[in-house]
Amino acid sequence: MNAEFINPFLVSIVNVLLTMAQVVATPGKPLLKTFDLAKGDVTGIIGMAGEKTRGSLAITFTEESILHIASQMLGEKIETMDETISDMVGEITNMVTGGAKKILSEKGYKFELAIPSMIVGKNHVISHKTNGPIVIVPFKTGNGDFFIEVCFER
Amino acid sequence: MNAEFINPFLVSIVNVLLTMAQVVATPGKPLLKTFDLAKGDVTGIIGMAGEKTRGSLAITFTEESILHIASQMLGEKIETMDETISDMVGEITNMVTGGAKKILSEKGYKFELAIPSMIVGKNHVISHKTNGPIVIVPFKTGNGDFFIEVCFER
Repeated sequence: MNAEFINPFLVSIVNVLLTMAQVVATPGKPLLKTFDLAKGDVTGIIGMAGEKTRGSLAITFTEESILHIASQMLGEKIETMDETISDMVGEITNMVTGGAKKILSEKGYKFELAIPSMIVGKNHVISHKTNGPIVIVPFKTGNGDFFIEVCFER
Repeated sequence: MNAEFINPFLVSIVNVLLTMAQVVATPGKPLLKTFDLAKGDVTGIIGMAGEKTRGSLAITFTEESILHIASQMLGEKIETMDETISDMVGEITNMVTGGAKKILSEKGYKFELAIPSMIVGKNHVISHKTNGPIVIVPFKTGNGDFFIEVCFER
């Protein structure tokens, strides 16, 4: 998997957080995923299926980062990890994959999005079942970290 | 969402566990999902996308149930929730959706499967981002419970 598949997701999440939450997110160095690299407290995950490729995207937030993002988006201090947070992570996941889908479509890679699912729980670990590599990109926001994981098979 | 969409997944998981692990799983009454109904310790989740419909399937196992299923499948006592368990849940998720895809295809509902992802962590909760209903079906195995969640949009 090359940068052509990863970059649309990075561009998209930076755009979404800046536009929706006025949060500046800075990507770190992409890494090949090993089993228990990222532990998140809330995760949005979505499947993508097309004729040429299929894959999945996970965005996994620490509690610190998502509470700050949620507070920014809603304009009030959010302090608990409840259904509002879960719904918001679903919306972010939808917007990020929607944006990336548009960019990839212009490059000739068309796919359909499934319905995102969210996972809430302390320190859970996501793994993808694939024969191909999983790329994980850490992000810093100044108020907690989050990670995206992109997994594509050809 | 009617039984026509749910039953293929129920038939498929019962078949997979009986064939692969000699475990008899008995479905309970299907329920409409509310936010925090099922808490699992390991979950397999997969997106499905087609022209007429899109959705997702989650299979969420308690530690007790999956350790028993894994022990049965591998023919040795499995006592820890490690990568072997996560891979096995991925395989089960693949087999269940593969089986259900075949049945639904014969009814004229064709969809592509994304790559499954697995979540490992104590007591995490899955929610699906959809405008439609999410149906959750509890299963008993005699050695712990598990739940499947099916979510389809038309």
